[in-house]
Amino acid sequence: MQIGMMGLGRMGANMVRRLLKGGHECVVYDINPASVNALVSEGAIGATSMEDFVAKLQKPACAWLMLPAAITGENVDKVAALMAAGDIIIDGGNSYYHDDVDKAEQLRAQGIDYIDVGTSGGVWGLDRGYCLMIGGPNEAVRHLDPIFATLAPGNTEEAPATSEGLRTAHLGYLHCGPTGSGHFVKMVHNGIEYGMMAAYAEGMNILKAANAGNKTRDIDAETSPLPTPQYYKFDIDMAAVSEVWRHGSVISSWLLDLTADALKQDPELAAYGGRVSDSGEGRWTLKAAIDTGVPTPVLSSALFQRFNSQGESLYADKLLSAMRFAFGGHHEKPKSGA
Amino acid sequence: MQIGMMGLGRMGANMVRRLLKGGHECVVYDINPASVNALVSEGAIGATSMEDFVAKLQKPACAWLMLPAAITGENVDKVAALMAAGDIIIDGGNSYYHDDVDKAEQLRAQGIDYIDVGTSGGVWGLDRGYCLMIGGPNEAVRHLDPIFATLAPGNTEEAPATSEGLRTAHLGYLHCGPTGSGHFVKMVHNGIEYGMMAAYAEGMNILKAANAGNKTRDIDAETSPLPTPQYYKFDIDMAAVSEVWRHGSVISSWLLDLTADALKQDPELAAYGGRVSDSGEGRWTLKAAIDTGVPTPVLSSALFQRFNSQGESLYADKLLSAMRFAFGGHHEKPKSGA
Amino acid sequence: MQIGMMGLGRMGANMVRRLLKGGHECVVYDINPASVNALVSEGAIGATSMEDFVAKLQKPACAWLMLPAAITGENVDKVAALMAAGDIIIDGGNSYYHDDVDKAEQLRAQGIDYIDVGTSGGVWGLDRGYCLMIGGPNEAVRHLDPIFATLAPGNTEEAPATSEGLRTAHLGYLHCGPTGSGHFVKMVHNGIEYGMMAAYAEGMNILKAANAGNKTRDIDAETSPLPTPQYYKFDIDMAAVSEVWRHGSVISSWLLDLTADALKQDPELAAYGGRVSDSGEGRWTLKAAIDTGVPTPVLSSALFQRFNSQGESLYADKLLSAMRFAFGGHHEKPKSGA
Amino acid sequence: MQIGMMGLGRMGANMVRRLLKGGHECVVYDINPASVNALVSEGAIGATSMEDFVAKLQKPACAWLMLPAAITGENVDKVAALMAAGDIIIDGGNSYYHDDVDKAEQLRAQGIDYIDVGTSGGVWGLDRGYCLMIGGPNEAVRHLDPIFATLAPGNTEEAPATSEGLRTAHLGYLHCGPTGSGHFVKMVHNGIEYGMMAAYAEGMNILKAANAGNKTRDIDAETSPLPTPQYYKFDIDMAAVSEVWRHGSVISSWLLDLTADALKQDPELAAYGGRVSDSGEGRWTLKAAIDTGVPTPVLSSALFQRFNSQGESLYADKLLSAMRFAFGGHHEKPKSGA
Repeated sequence: MQIGMMGLGRMGANMVRRLLKGGHECVVYDINPASVNALVSEGAIGATSMEDFVAKLQKPACAWLMLPAAITGENVDKVAALMAAGDIIIDGGNSYYHDDVDKAEQLRAQGIDYIDVGTSGGVWGLDRGYCLMIGGPNEAVRHLDPIFATLAPGNTEEAPATSEGLRTAHLGYLHCGPTGSGHFVKMVHNGIEYGMMAAYAEGMNILKAANAGNKTRDIDAETSPLPTPQYYKFDIDMAAVSEVWRHGSVISSWLLDLTADALKQDPELAAYGGRVSDSGEGRWTLKAAIDTGVPTPVLSSALFQRFNSQGESLYADKLLSAMRFAFGGHHEKPKSGA
Repeated sequence: MQIGMMGLGRMGANMVRRLLKGGHECVVYDINPASVNALVSEGAIGATSMEDFVAKLQKPACAWLMLPAAITGENVDKVAALMAAGDIIIDGGNSYYHDDVDKAEQLRAQGIDYIDVGTSGGVWGLDRGYCLMIGGPNEAVRHLDPIFATLAPGNTEEAPATSEGLRTAHLGYLHCGPTGSGHFVKMVHNGIEYGMMAAYAEGMNILKAANAGNKTRDIDAETSPLPTPQYYKFDIDMAAVSEVWRHGSVISSWLLDLTADALKQDPELAAYGGRVSDSGEGRWTLKAAIDTGVPTPVLSSALFQRFNSQGESLYADKLLSAMRFAFGGHHEKPKSGA
Repeated sequence: MQIGMMGLGRMGANMVRRLLKGGHECVVYDINPASVNALVSEGAIGATSMEDFVAKLQKPACAWLMLPAAITGENVDKVAALMAAGDIIIDGGNSYYHDDVDKAEQLRAQGIDYIDVGTSGGVWGLDRGYCLMIGGPNEAVRHLDPIFATLAPGNTEEAPATSEGLRTAHLGYLHCGPTGSGHFVKMVHNGIEYGMMAAYAEGMNILKAANAGNKTRDIDAETSPLPTPQYYKFDIDMAAVSEVWRHGSVISSWLLDLTADALKQDPELAAYGGRVSDSGEGRWTLKAAIDTGVPTPVLSSALFQRFNSQGESLYADKLLSAMRFAFGGHHEKPKSGA
Repeated sequence: MQIGMMGLGRMGANMVRRLLKGGHECVVYDINPASVNALVSEGAIGATSMEDFVAKLQKPACAWLMLPAAITGENVDKVAALMAAGDIIIDGGNSYYHDDVDKAEQLRAQGIDYIDVGTSGGVWGLDRGYCLMIGGPNEAVRHLDPIFATLAPGNTEEAPATSEGLRTAHLGYLHCGPTGSGHFVKMVHNGIEYGMMAAYAEGMNILKAANAGNKTRDIDAETSPLPTPQYYKFDIDMAAVSEVWRHGSVISSWLLDLTADALKQDPELAAYGGRVSDSGEGRWTLKAAIDTGVPTPVLSSALFQRFNSQGESLYADKLLSAMRFAFGGHHEKPKSGA
């Protein structure tokens, strides 16, 4: 079937490629004409403006937006202004699901269906397929089923489930509920991702410290001594451990596959400085947990560790040192070279 | 080659089966004769006593113990007393690696090699193979290579690595270092496992609460109101979401595979009461982190949540209520039916 | 000076009493006439309706609202509708500071000044005085200085500071900034309160467990053994410990004073069931931390422990048990009687 | 009465001064003769060697050791070798209570009583008195009551309690139980201290960030945007807020008194770099919680934040960046200047 794709960054462009390969017709648009041209040369139909983009879409027009969250709202409005009742807009970016809920209600007045699709798969999606978490009205979602089926991994061994919910899940896409539910499920997905990543990272950090008993250590009142150095004399091969865990262990996962790859290239990870960004979903997950009163000590610890890595604990840490000096006369040790 | 297996519980018996299938000769012993007989009927050589067990082992005798951690130490001593210099004892249970380090030193005086093997794979290991994390002297570990190779999953697509560390890791077994390092790596593995499990559980708990806006809520000073109910009106199909995440998403893993299976059977998990045991490794992981000064907020949050589920926060919680009454006259709400 | 007080619950009524004692004229109103009459008998001027209440206020009318957060907004609007430019409304309840910021902007169009006052002191404020965190326009805040000075503890030994910020802080009230800043500072105050309370509660819970080595313990695969029972044979006198810490220790505090009192009455705290409510400020504190990227692992852990005590981890805990059964065949232990 | 004090560092010397002022006779010894001479000039009896020190003590000899934990054990042994049955050794340092339990059993064979005293009060103890948490045999502890009474704050307004436990607690010293219990209670005290300090520090850090809406912010995919800048436009006077909270609020405490002082001197805390040491007790507290299965999410978060401030999360953070690059092609932002 035909689909329009607007926003041809890494994610959007690769999704077009996967759709073209699947036999779909893709009308593509981006403010950067070079991005349009690149895909035209691969078989897509290019548009020179938003008006041109919408004009080239057959009815009901289906426009998939793959834009940064910050500019999605305004662009949805612009596209919607060019559309008619019965048309469909899909937001496949990393929007806050609150915005989807609000936007769907706004567009409903115009008769336009608004679908939100949480998309996981990153740079690997082109080949592996994208895991799609979809929110929106039943009919519109069903209309786009061929598109979702192509973008998703598909081709898995399991027999299709009989229940509606499980009908497509094993193929890698799922209609989660009304508009907003797609990004809600994707948001929680990313919250879990933060927690899993931190679990691996903390564990590997302990393995790295397993040779602490072989190292000399400052002996002063401000350094807690290592109590039993004889138990910390292991030089662990980080790459080999992450590799062995991939095979038959309880903690095997795709993230571990990637970790093992990275550690094989450089077990010291010298290319990185240790400043870990967070992109919004982890924060939103936590806010949803707070709103609904769900305890999330692990997910929040993972997020706060990222804030820490960004240097945001500095003032709090200074305050602790100031208190220690005030009650005990403790002088700060200088920060280590790191 | 020949190997002796002592301790024929679920894990030990299945490992014997996998070894027999791999063409090895297995001498088996357990204080329960029925467990011995069952494996004899499958091709193992039975022993009627510990003395008989050791006597039936060819030199150098290799005795693999698969016993509860609490009784491993004393049984190692008994077996060692029947052995001679050059023999090998393997502890495949869930021992604390401190005990391995100590025991290895003790047995070294007798000329007996002591090997510790952390084993992951649970009830699935018989078919999938076990992920083996091995600590011990080089020569003894190399001697047992055929055994490890059979127990491990093996047969993976990757080409063998050139480095020593990665030589066997892709087959699912790894010589991690001197005795103790096997259980050290397994301990951290389990610490990570706790963190990953909690990440999924917390995330799924948020999904479960996504319909909070459809529920009535107590309106009183002791209940924090739901601020924006319009954003919490999703009835999420837990089984379907866990299934879709298995396909192409960043958080796919074997634990997620198992979770999806469990939720397909009963999305309400009515068979469970919510008391989560912990078996030692999570605690030891944390102690290692504390000793070496490694921050582990996620792994510790996961462990403490288990303590919470075991009811161990009760006194602390009562104290919070007592303080709230003392400064604000706040009366406790009764616990909900749950 | 004259002040109107609307909302005569525990907090509002006691504040009127403290103001009357301080020589101020108080016009009082509540939807419950009995509450009005009680204070009239103590010297206040009663009002029979909101209209009557506003009519009895001299110009510029100063109306202090002490209402539940949920109904503050609508009542502010009603009072404002009866007022004129130059009048002042004070919100002394536990409102979300976002609402204050919005409301102040709305009322500015009418020429009405809106002041928010975070109030700490609970049931003890009548005698000890209230700690007041004030947000609002300079002139209006200064106009109410006599009221703030009477409500606050005052009478402290310190000499007044020379800087504007510290001019009144040592008396127990502070103009924190524009409208909203009072409740912002009070919100963070409560976030800290949660953290401090949890620190005491967790520590006392460890003291309570100091006799674990004297207790019998289940011996099974689902119970982690106590490693060194000889170090856990102390029967700690909880009341005495909390008392001794009040005198000369680094952790002495008013919360500890209250804790010691409560433990003297009943060290087992049998009157409490352990369900700890949270009233909003802890949640808002965390959201502010998330918005601004400030790591708050301690404050969030304290909040999540309250959610736990409310039973909200149940589904997550069930899921952990389901996973453990799936990979290891572990059966849940039944919940203990507690 | 007479007491011997060995170890004349800041703590030991000040305790001697407080004892001399209280009319006690103090025999003092230190490996640094200058420390001895200083106190001799203030009225103490100096000793020139450990032998001389013990020889000058009347029977039963009472030797109080105030030494770093690392060298306490060996010095106890040396002193004990010079003593006879019926003598008393007191360890007033920051020893691990496990060592006290073991040492008491060892000395019991010699007939020497071993008392451990956890001491809080820091540099303020000389004037304010020290909070003493005492473990040891009843008779020996009672024998030293005059010493404890002088060191402790005493002079408080409360009437003595009738129960044994509360007999002395209001004076600032408490016999907590057998040897080891004093340092156990002090250990938990410090664990709580870490939690309280972190609660204040995190809260103040949020206040510091309350003007985030006035600042420019990077706009890129690696920076989470500030969602509602209009609510983050407060410039909070940190010194004034910490001061006002001291008066009538729920979170007033001695730590807050010290914090307010520090912030009055420099609200930016420019003298500190933010590396926060930890000295052992926080780690031991956590280990006790783990051994006994007590959930301590707040106390552990506080400890791990210190590890973070010491730079110990670096490898974990690098690993997170490596994973993010692997699945999403995310490039790390450089660390900010801080």
